[in-house]
Amino acid sequence: MKLLRLLSLLSLGAALLNAAPVTVEKWGIFELELKGPSEGNPFTEVRFGAVFTNGATTVEVPGFYDGDGSYKVRFMPSATGEWKYETKANRWPLTGKLGSFVVTPPAKGNHGPVRVAHTFHFAYADGTPFKQIGTTIYNWTDTPEAVQEETLKTLASAPFNKIRMLLTPQPTPYQNSFAPPRWPFVGTPPTSWDFTRFNPEYFRHLEKRIGQLRDLGIEADVILFNPYGKFGFESMDAASDERYVRYVIARLGAYRNIWWSLANEYDFQRVKTEPEWTRIGELVQAVDPYNHLRSIHNGSLLYDNNQPWVTHASIQNGAAVEEPGRAEMYRGVWRRPVVYDEVKYEGSSPYRWGDLSGEEMVHRFWCGTVAGTYVGHGDYFLVNEDTWTSFGGTLRGQSAPRLAFLRKILEDGPAQGIDPIDKWQDPNTGGVHGTYYLTYFGRAQPTEWTFKLYKNGVEDGQRYVVDVIDTWAMTVTPVEGEFVTKKLNNYHFGDAAGRKVKLPGKPGMAVRVRRIGADGQPVKLELQREGT
Amino acid sequence: MKLLRLLSLLSLGAALLNAAPVTVEKWGIFELELKGPSEGNPFTEVRFGAVFTNGATTVEVPGFYDGDGSYKVRFMPSATGEWKYETKANRWPLTGKLGSFVVTPPAKGNHGPVRVAHTFHFAYADGTPFKQIGTTIYNWTDTPEAVQEETLKTLASAPFNKIRMLLTPQPTPYQNSFAPPRWPFVGTPPTSWDFTRFNPEYFRHLEKRIGQLRDLGIEADVILFNPYGKFGFESMDAASDERYVRYVIARLGAYRNIWWSLANEYDFQRVKTEPEWTRIGELVQAVDPYNHLRSIHNGSLLYDNNQPWVTHASIQNGAAVEEPGRAEMYRGVWRRPVVYDEVKYEGSSPYRWGDLSGEEMVHRFWCGTVAGTYVGHGDYFLVNEDTWTSFGGTLRGQSAPRLAFLRKILEDGPAQGIDPIDKWQDPNTGGVHGTYYLTYFGRAQPTEWTFKLYKNGVEDGQRYVVDVIDTWAMTVTPVEGEFVTKKLNNYHFGDAAGRKVKLPGKPGMAVRVRRIGADGQPVKLELQREGT
Repeated sequence: MKLLRLLSLLSLGAALLNAAPVTVEKWGIFELELKGPSEGNPFTEVRFGAVFTNGATTVEVPGFYDGDGSYKVRFMPSATGEWKYETKANRWPLTGKLGSFVVTPPAKGNHGPVRVAHTFHFAYADGTPFKQIGTTIYNWTDTPEAVQEETLKTLASAPFNKIRMLLTPQPTPYQNSFAPPRWPFVGTPPTSWDFTRFNPEYFRHLEKRIGQLRDLGIEADVILFNPYGKFGFESMDAASDERYVRYVIARLGAYRNIWWSLANEYDFQRVKTEPEWTRIGELVQAVDPYNHLRSIHNGSLLYDNNQPWVTHASIQNGAAVEEPGRAEMYRGVWRRPVVYDEVKYEGSSPYRWGDLSGEEMVHRFWCGTVAGTYVGHGDYFLVNEDTWTSFGGTLRGQSAPRLAFLRKILEDGPAQGIDPIDKWQDPNTGGVHGTYYLTYFGRAQPTEWTFKLYKNGVEDGQRYVVDVIDTWAMTVTPVEGEFVTKKLNNYHFGDAAGRKVKLPGKPGMAVRVRRIGADGQPVKLELQREGT
Repeated sequence: MKLLRLLSLLSLGAALLNAAPVTVEKWGIFELELKGPSEGNPFTEVRFGAVFTNGATTVEVPGFYDGDGSYKVRFMPSATGEWKYETKANRWPLTGKLGSFVVTPPAKGNHGPVRVAHTFHFAYADGTPFKQIGTTIYNWTDTPEAVQEETLKTLASAPFNKIRMLLTPQPTPYQNSFAPPRWPFVGTPPTSWDFTRFNPEYFRHLEKRIGQLRDLGIEADVILFNPYGKFGFESMDAASDERYVRYVIARLGAYRNIWWSLANEYDFQRVKTEPEWTRIGELVQAVDPYNHLRSIHNGSLLYDNNQPWVTHASIQNGAAVEEPGRAEMYRGVWRRPVVYDEVKYEGSSPYRWGDLSGEEMVHRFWCGTVAGTYVGHGDYFLVNEDTWTSFGGTLRGQSAPRLAFLRKILEDGPAQGIDPIDKWQDPNTGGVHGTYYLTYFGRAQPTEWTFKLYKNGVEDGQRYVVDVIDTWAMTVTPVEGEFVTKKLNNYHFGDAAGRKVKLPGKPGMAVRVRRIGADGQPVKLELQREGT
């Protein structure tokens, strides 16, 4: 055991030698480091990993070479109590090592990895709903350290709980003054690489940043391949693709806030065919011990998101969230969560993919929301050759506070998520039958709304309260008194007294309708929480 | 050979005994009849079919038992010249029979079966474009003979080139006075059937009607299963389903105007799972020697139309064609033709699936058209307990003449079909880059349109003519003079003189823009015609 070091990242790197018991929180990271051979090419020649078990569950976890004769395996435990492990390798110093550790309950704010829930939605592993409000910061980890710190500071007070980021560098205005500080492979920048040798320093830096996102409560939707820059990472051979995917998963998979995005604009990467993407998607599914969320982002050609490896659709299509009736359509096709990850960016770009007004960005979020889908943000105002969505720093647009407002409404809303109430008939209304309704009027400018609910889940005599929501001014104005349901016709219930709700005749308005119980309070939908 | 009768349906049933040479037109029906055993249950006990070859192409064709000791096999030849056949059976009187016939060029109006063309569109086998303008007449073959004749008369002057029809009866208002005159199985109506014995008379009647549709230039989209009526046809066991599908294909497959629709509202048939539908779809694909078009029609749950057996999407979703931006979305998902076969019916129904105005029905056809998809019509005005869409007879709605007008525009348009010109940016415009543009303004009521074309296929100095189309009044009004292109910006070309087109400020208007050649005439896109 003299070569064995147990290192708990969560106790901030303190190295323990045969100290007992080692502890790690549930959904935290247990890391085991062993010393082994450094001659030859350890990345290709040495197989290393470990089997973890608590008796009930056994998980085989791939390890990785971290340079300088150091081999590591990281494990994210999904249950409290004692776990044991045994290493497996094709080198004697690395194989057959035994050990154990104790998994403690998760700390406050640790809800585990995000999973698909209720078919079209997301929840953390402990059942806490995850209401995705995403943004895009492609290459924030390639910027000067001060900019990265500024990005983290911005994120700390921003509404975003998921960011999309590229795993490899892309050429940038920054590179007019300096190149990316690190590269994922050993070689000579910008195009001459040894794809059989990874650069551990690159990944250690990335891991630090992903850990910081986790600590801010932000999911990292890490994009494995992208078509930009032509550094050669997009056109590796199949064996190098596989080696790269396996290495990335071995290093990052134990971070609970990881999502895997196979590609940005996959169809713009002319060097891979669709069957190759499918193969890579299936590889990620097979290799990741934790079944993190998996998607692939399109350019103009939609991927077949019914493929079994895809957990949710990650869509670029701004037109799809211009009105809720469109947003619902992909949802119905794929029967899994739809995240409109790129709907054009709020910005001042001369290109039409980056010229949305703040109002339009907020509008698109609301269209996606009432259709039972999720939307992603981008901020593309050129400042010092830079934009938030390319490199982070600070936000320049006006939508972010309104997205915080929306997030609050979602988090106060039904735990199970918002679904279309009367699909293909009333696309502007989402919610939960008989309990909660959110109607978004979009660009229309109504001056009143007649209380009316679709029949499912509704009976005569139910009591509801109504709020008027201004999505831009960020106000929620309760309408005085109650509304009591009475059947109108084959399809709808109205208010027994025929009550209407006054509206201010401007765009971006919504009404929220909530059923109230005997206590006069809005009915809550109970969370399904996993036991710890 | 004394038991051998050769019967050419195309020479109207004249039976020929050893006369030579027998001829049949290309894509016509060659029928061979043999006498064989009638004892036991020939439907289940006798295997019978034939192999046809012209040397280059060999086709194995299933035969069927037609009652009274008569066995038939029907063949639709796809090439002119001499064909030979040899029968195959598990009974001596039916096996090893040899013969030959000569296939002549197709007669006028015979373009062969309809196939998928240019990914999103349809064409007959000879390359003639097929611009689908469909209607729905579910049970027209179950009505009194006089009504069936009236239906054919209506169809002869209607715009429809495809009808959707159920293969089996459903309970109807007609049955208040009398039951369907025939049933597909032997047994006691309405629910006690011997699913191992078909009723040849039922199918002979159906074939007569399908042949009459063919002669009117109308495709028969035959729906194999439906959830209505609970006669038991929807809940047969898997072996009976397969026997039924095989029998139907053996009888009807040689009709060139056949399309196979697995089901109406497949998800409303609670007795079949999705894997069972897939199995049936794959069975149809495997058994049909002619690869007729195959689809499955949904209720509220969309089928996975990316399944390899599906040739085109057959969609019920009225909301999807309320505006063109929606209509395009399914097209992009499935990358095959999308036919919005049910978009609600024009009618006076108290139910919202059958209460469209004529204007709205026409609007939906135009929305689908400029999005590069196809739409189906229904007419649901209750007259004598009857509607066109249930039983045929006469049309009561106002849309049909406008659909004839649309069909003419489509048939005058690009042979390859209409595709989105600037997807996700200008959903209201379809056409062919640099040649043909159709912009539909929908419910908007513009008073002018500024000549503007998306950049693809366009250069400075191209010459175009413009027509103003009133989709309801059925007028095409040429705008005087020409428009000459000049680059406006990154994305668009305008007219060099900045010309605008005046519009009448009412809904349902469109403009058609066609490039003109040196001869001053609109440029035609050449047909790709198959040699005969």
